[in-house]
Amino acid sequence: MKFIRYGEAGAEKPGVLDANGALRDLSGVVDDIAGDVLGALPRVDPESLPLVEGEPRIGTPVGRIGKLVAIGLNFSDHAAELNAEPPEMPIVFMKANSCINGPFDPVILPRVSQKADWEVELGVVIGKTAKYVDEADAMDHVAGFTIVNDVSEREFQMEWGGQWTKGKSCDTFGPVGPWLVTPDEVGDVHDLDMALDVNGERMQTGSTSYMIFQVPHIISHLSQIMTLHPGDVIATGTPPGVGMGHKPQRFLKEGDVMEARIEKLGAQRQRIMRDA
Amino acid sequence: MKFIRYGEAGAEKPGVLDANGALRDLSGVVDDIAGDVLGALPRVDPESLPLVEGEPRIGTPVGRIGKLVAIGLNFSDHAAELNAEPPEMPIVFMKANSCINGPFDPVILPRVSQKADWEVELGVVIGKTAKYVDEADAMDHVAGFTIVNDVSEREFQMEWGGQWTKGKSCDTFGPVGPWLVTPDEVGDVHDLDMALDVNGERMQTGSTSYMIFQVPHIISHLSQIMTLHPGDVIATGTPPGVGMGHKPQRFLKEGDVMEARIEKLGAQRQRIMRDA
Repeated sequence: MKFIRYGEAGAEKPGVLDANGALRDLSGVVDDIAGDVLGALPRVDPESLPLVEGEPRIGTPVGRIGKLVAIGLNFSDHAAELNAEPPEMPIVFMKANSCINGPFDPVILPRVSQKADWEVELGVVIGKTAKYVDEADAMDHVAGFTIVNDVSEREFQMEWGGQWTKGKSCDTFGPVGPWLVTPDEVGDVHDLDMALDVNGERMQTGSTSYMIFQVPHIISHLSQIMTLHPGDVIATGTPPGVGMGHKPQRFLKEGDVMEARIEKLGAQRQRIMRDA
Repeated sequence: MKFIRYGEAGAEKPGVLDANGALRDLSGVVDDIAGDVLGALPRVDPESLPLVEGEPRIGTPVGRIGKLVAIGLNFSDHAAELNAEPPEMPIVFMKANSCINGPFDPVILPRVSQKADWEVELGVVIGKTAKYVDEADAMDHVAGFTIVNDVSEREFQMEWGGQWTKGKSCDTFGPVGPWLVTPDEVGDVHDLDMALDVNGERMQTGSTSYMIFQVPHIISHLSQIMTLHPGDVIATGTPPGVGMGHKPQRFLKEGDVMEARIEKLGAQRQRIMRDA
């Protein structure tokens, strides 16, 4: 199933896509797609639910995201484009949860930003609490998958002090969505095509098959360190083609439009604006 | 005033200390010390409030902490002990909000942890939304101050991949409290003695006067990058004496007791345990 949250930011209602791709109102079944609901997502016939009128804003497909954990340099071909050695263990960083953004909301550059960049990533949504889980059991803790654009300001990330956080945590730099797709509908999550376009021009082309550390390993590894709670989201790394890796380098400017797609997970799209 | 939250984890009630250091029940005045309440903390005569019976657990003095941002290598004398150059800009990292812990709750080592370390830090609690604030206005956004022990697993931090997050984000590695002390009662926040003992032996001795980047600069800098929301907490860096800096190095083991103190902000204390 494909779950969606729609409506004004902060007041989204739960929904689900029907077989025709039309949005159905799930608010008679659950209050929200968040927290413990993620561990037992409702199995209903979408056609039995009311159609949603109009074209509401689409929010993040998960409410009350607790933490947004991200994995760095997790694609062998992306590491190569940056002349970086493939890591021996997953590189983990956090995006501030205040950066989380709807999948079609504008991405807003901070006033002084000159090097904002894109990163299409597979997002893993935790459904059940995970602590010290084995790889073999890790997928039991997953509610589903979505797209995360791990928007990154390279000057803030690389030139403004020794950790990546600053470049990863700007407001609106964490678009999540549009759908939360359940694992049964995704099938092999390590065989999904990925792409990101800017103004219709292809920038990133990849496949989750190139992930150095696959989803069960990432969940198991993180769960040795910290508890993963329902509603936590893990962004699992990006394929080649980021702006920083272009020759010459290429970064986002006002008016640009990013579109990130992952096979079976839909597409998200953001217009770039700048803070006044 | 000194605000406190007391009671079972997840169900804390608001309180305040009276002139004798006795705990008074503030729940008739505010629901919680969290969110927008932090921007307009109640000014009441503590003696007019009911005394709290018994000795309840003390929780974090702020509820629903949004993000726990931390500043690295922010004391000139601490940078020196690690043979690190003082940074030119604040080094920023995040502690996962799932690590946040009450000030007297046990700190629990992950199963394989061998290098857990202490870091007493001044915690700044945001009271009013801060975005693009000048240093001159930064303190207007502060609800008050508290103590954070930025507990750090040095192997996870330094040897398990390229970012610090893993060593900073283990469950229970973010004790916050005991009190939220309002700025009027703190006075000069850059002239407070700091100390941390392990099993009664002094490990860290310092003063907030040695901060390389002071509180207004940190708030202003962060607010150029991301919005600081009411209930966000900033840990502002640690003075010398961490276990990693000892010769030979010294780390936490089961049964150890840490006590962190900052002048005017009280003391917090944790017994070290290990996950089964």
